[in-house]
Amino acid sequence: MATVAVIIDDWFEDSEYTEPVKAFRDAGHKIVHVGLKAGSTVQGKKQGTKVTIEKAVSGVSPGDFDALLVPGGYSPDRLRAHGEAVSFTAEFVRSGKPVFVICHGAQLLITAQVLKGRTITGWKSIIQDIKNAGASFVDWEVVEDGNLISSRDPGDLPSFIKASLSKLR
Amino acid sequence: MATVAVIIDDWFEDSEYTEPVKAFRDAGHKIVHVGLKAGSTVQGKKQGTKVTIEKAVSGVSPGDFDALLVPGGYSPDRLRAHGEAVSFTAEFVRSGKPVFVICHGAQLLITAQVLKGRTITGWKSIIQDIKNAGASFVDWEVVEDGNLISSRDPGDLPSFIKASLSKLR
Repeated sequence: MATVAVIIDDWFEDSEYTEPVKAFRDAGHKIVHVGLKAGSTVQGKKQGTKVTIEKAVSGVSPGDFDALLVPGGYSPDRLRAHGEAVSFTAEFVRSGKPVFVICHGAQLLITAQVLKGRTITGWKSIIQDIKNAGASFVDWEVVEDGNLISSRDPGDLPSFIKASLSKLR
Repeated sequence: MATVAVIIDDWFEDSEYTEPVKAFRDAGHKIVHVGLKAGSTVQGKKQGTKVTIEKAVSGVSPGDFDALLVPGGYSPDRLRAHGEAVSFTAEFVRSGKPVFVICHGAQLLITAQVLKGRTITGWKSIIQDIKNAGASFVDWEVVEDGNLISSRDPGDLPSFIKASLSKLR
């Protein structure tokens, strides 16, 4: 069974956190909530889902986990203003371990400068940012490029979860 | 006296709307609120400031105004998912008329593909996006490059307002 880090901050898109996490747990995998401050509580932007941060991103490394989930909403915009969240994400993508990004999640990977030559999808507002980062944008419900699984929005969750689960052992 | 379009949607940074607009009005300039739907009300993300949209962006052109203000927060992210807001902004920048952007405001200009070769500043989370768009990012409280005035965050408002006012006749 895999240990999945979820990197998250305030104003995440609730369903892009709750639905993958439920599916991963139902399949027997372990979830660890990683954020800016251990012990703090962050909230979703629509339903106010509360998440307690278990590990500060400054104190973990990709070696502690088997995969990374980046939910969307405005959480990625907040996280990428912090160098430790950016460097953790950059190392995770470079490690070759699975990284699951949905909606605005790709923003964190853009600031981590790990998208050059990759093929991904994401929320429509960030299409130009994805292209400018040197990635190929495709308008599909789920895109798999090596260790990178990406989707556009909550409507893509069934495909996103299915593709992500297939990467977890 | 000038007519200033303010392009705005939900979750704008309250002070980045209220303070420039108060200063522009105090100086005798006219404000027109432009958004996705005329007659709708949009709200700020922190203080819940309410703004009624007077003109739909689909029904206006840069020729109707003397300058454009793009407040930050998450309003620019929402606006740039809509082609009409993007094309209006692109035409405004290309018109040579003054464009005032603060915080996340530059996101709308990135999607409008008008930043190549320009020098601007913006909120720290979008620095990489600004660079990837072909612009030079500088970490100053206000940057003036031709018709483009930009600032980083609410702390820069006094300088942003002063520089913007100097462009209005």
